[in-house]
Amino acid sequence: MPVETLKWTEKGLVIIDQRLLPGNEKYITLKTTEDVCKAIETLAVRGAPAIGIAAAYGVVIAVKENPDKEHVRSSITRLRKTRPTAVNLFHALKSMEKNLDDAFASGEPVARFLELANGIYAEDVRICRTLAKNGAELLSDGDTVLTHCNAGGLATSGYGTALGIIYAAIEDGKHIDVYVDETRPLLQGARLTAWELSQNGVQITIICDSMAAEVLRQGRVDHVIVGADRIVANGDSANKIGTYGLSIAAREHGVPFYVAAPLTSFDFSLKSGREILIEERDAAEIYSLWDLSGQTENVSFYNPAFDVTPAQNISAIISEKGIAKPPYEDILEAWSIDRGNPSES
Amino acid sequence: MPVETLKWTEKGLVIIDQRLLPGNEKYITLKTTEDVCKAIETLAVRGAPAIGIAAAYGVVIAVKENPDKEHVRSSITRLRKTRPTAVNLFHALKSMEKNLDDAFASGEPVARFLELANGIYAEDVRICRTLAKNGAELLSDGDTVLTHCNAGGLATSGYGTALGIIYAAIEDGKHIDVYVDETRPLLQGARLTAWELSQNGVQITIICDSMAAEVLRQGRVDHVIVGADRIVANGDSANKIGTYGLSIAAREHGVPFYVAAPLTSFDFSLKSGREILIEERDAAEIYSLWDLSGQTENVSFYNPAFDVTPAQNISAIISEKGIAKPPYEDILEAWSIDRGNPSES
Repeated sequence: MPVETLKWTEKGLVIIDQRLLPGNEKYITLKTTEDVCKAIETLAVRGAPAIGIAAAYGVVIAVKENPDKEHVRSSITRLRKTRPTAVNLFHALKSMEKNLDDAFASGEPVARFLELANGIYAEDVRICRTLAKNGAELLSDGDTVLTHCNAGGLATSGYGTALGIIYAAIEDGKHIDVYVDETRPLLQGARLTAWELSQNGVQITIICDSMAAEVLRQGRVDHVIVGADRIVANGDSANKIGTYGLSIAAREHGVPFYVAAPLTSFDFSLKSGREILIEERDAAEIYSLWDLSGQTENVSFYNPAFDVTPAQNISAIISEKGIAKPPYEDILEAWSIDRGNPSES
Repeated sequence: MPVETLKWTEKGLVIIDQRLLPGNEKYITLKTTEDVCKAIETLAVRGAPAIGIAAAYGVVIAVKENPDKEHVRSSITRLRKTRPTAVNLFHALKSMEKNLDDAFASGEPVARFLELANGIYAEDVRICRTLAKNGAELLSDGDTVLTHCNAGGLATSGYGTALGIIYAAIEDGKHIDVYVDETRPLLQGARLTAWELSQNGVQITIICDSMAAEVLRQGRVDHVIVGADRIVANGDSANKIGTYGLSIAAREHGVPFYVAAPLTSFDFSLKSGREILIEERDAAEIYSLWDLSGQTENVSFYNPAFDVTPAQNISAIISEKGIAKPPYEDILEAWSIDRGNPSES
C-alpha cells in the first residue's frame, strides 16, 4: 500500500495527521469519539472514503467508551454532523447503526462493531484495487495525468481512487507523469498528493490551480483524473472546489475528464448535483497563508469547500464495477446502486 | 488618485514596495539604474503601465549617474531585459531611446529625459482616467465585478485600468461590489487589489482562483474585468496566469469578459497571441508559501507568469480610445495603433 492512512490498534484509531504533511510525518491516536469527530472536522483525516472508515471506527470507540445503546446512538449523530458533503460518511454510519440492536443483543457489542468497521476498511482496500485496475486500462505508457486535490492513499484506506489508477498503471509497467494542482486553499495537492506520489517514485510537476487551463492548452496533459465526494443519479459529481472549473477547461481542450470513486461515494437519493449540500468552511483557511493586516475593512471571504461538476463535463466515471460513459443514468442503474437516502438515520 | 504608486523626487524614483503590501506600507527610493531594474525584476513595482513609467525614470537616473550616451544606451538595454511580456516597458524605452541624440545635443540631457519621463507619467494619468470613464458606462448601479490580479492604481500611475473602471463607476454614484481572485502564486489579488480597493472603501470578497468558476455559475457576478500586459493585432491578450481559464469559465456562464488596457499595452507587430513571449518565473514563487520539506524528490514545478486569452473569449476591449467589440481587427485599426515592433531598439 502506498500510504498507511489509518490503522486500528488496541489503543484506538491511529491516523497520519494530514494537517502536518509533508513537513511532519506524525501519527496520532484517536481515543475518544470526540477525538475522531475533531480529526474529521479539522481535516487531520480527510478524503471521502477515509472519512467513512474513520467514522466507523469512531462508533467502535463510542461502544468502548460507554457500552450503552443511547450513548452509541448519540455518538453516531455527532459523527454524522462532522462534514456534510462526502456521502461515504453517511453510508458507513448507516451501516453501523443498522446493526446496533444485533450488536448489543450479541452481548459483545465492541467485537461486533469492530468486525463491522474492519469490514468497511477491508472492503475499501479491495474496492480501491479493483477500481484502480479498471481505470488503469484508460492510461497508456508515456501518458501524463493532471489531478486536483488528493484522491490518493491518504483519502482512502491507503491505495487511492484517482491516484490508485496511476499506481495501478505504473504497476502494469507503464510510465506515467503527473501534473498536480496545488489545490487552494488547503493545498491538498501540493502537500498531500505531491507527498504520496513522490514517496512512491512518481515524477510530478506542481502547478497553481490557475495554471491548469494553460497547461491543458499546451497539450501537456492526456487525461484529467479526480476523485469525488458524492456522485448523484444523473452523474453530477461533487468534488474539491476547483474541480468544476478544471472540467470546463478540460472539455474546452478535448482532454478526457475522469471521475474515480467507489460506490460508497454514490448517492442515488439525489437526482441532480444541485441538490448536494456544499460545505462552506472558515475564511481563515484562505487568509492563513498570507498577511491580512491592514485590510480587514470592507473585506470578506467566500470559501466553498466543494463544487459540482455536471455530468456533461465528465468523460467517464470509474468505480469498482467498471467504467461508465455518458449518458450515465442507465449505466449507473446497471451497477445496482441503492436508492435509499444515506443521510437519513 | 487612489494610490501613490511611484513619484519622482530629487533623490530618485520613490515607489511603494509592492512586495510588502498589505502588511507593510513602505516607500523606497530607487537611486541607480540597477535599483530600478531589480525593483522591476522582483516585482517591487509591477503592472504593465507602471513598469513602463518606472523604466522611463530609470533612463533619467542613468543620465544622472553618468551623462554619457553609451552608458545611457547600455542602461536602456539592461532595462529592456528586466521582464519580457508587458509591452509598455518596450514602448517607454523606445520613446526614450528615440530622443537620445536630441537630448544630448540639447546640452541638458537630464532635464530633457526628465521631461520625457514626466510626460509618460502624465499621459498615463490622463489615459487611465479616460479609459476608466469609457469602461464605467458598461457598469450599472448595483453590479458586481470579478477581477484577477491587480490592474489598479498600483499597476499604473495611480488610478488603474480594470480597477479604474470600478473607481469611475463609483465616482458616478453607482454601487459596485467586487470579487477578487487571490491570484496565485504571488497573490496580487489578495495582497494588492484587496488592499487598494479596501483603502478606497470598496466592498470586496476575496476568493481563491479555483472558486471563480463556481462563483460565476452561482450568478454572483455581472462582469469580469481584467487588465492586459500585451494586446496583439487580432485582440488576443496576455495577462496574469489564470486569466485564460477565467475567460473560459466566464464564456461558459455568459458573463461578459472585458480587457481594459491603454494603447501602450498594444503590440500590433504581432498578429496572434501565440507569438507573445511568456515569462516563466522561479519555482520558489509557488512553494515559498508552504513547507516543501520531505518532498523534493521527483518533484518539479512549472510557473508561467502569464497566459493568453484568445479574442473570442473577450466581450470587449476598453482603452482610452473607447470600447472595441469583436471582431477586433477593424476597430483596433480605427484606433490607429502603430504597427512598429516596440521590442526593437
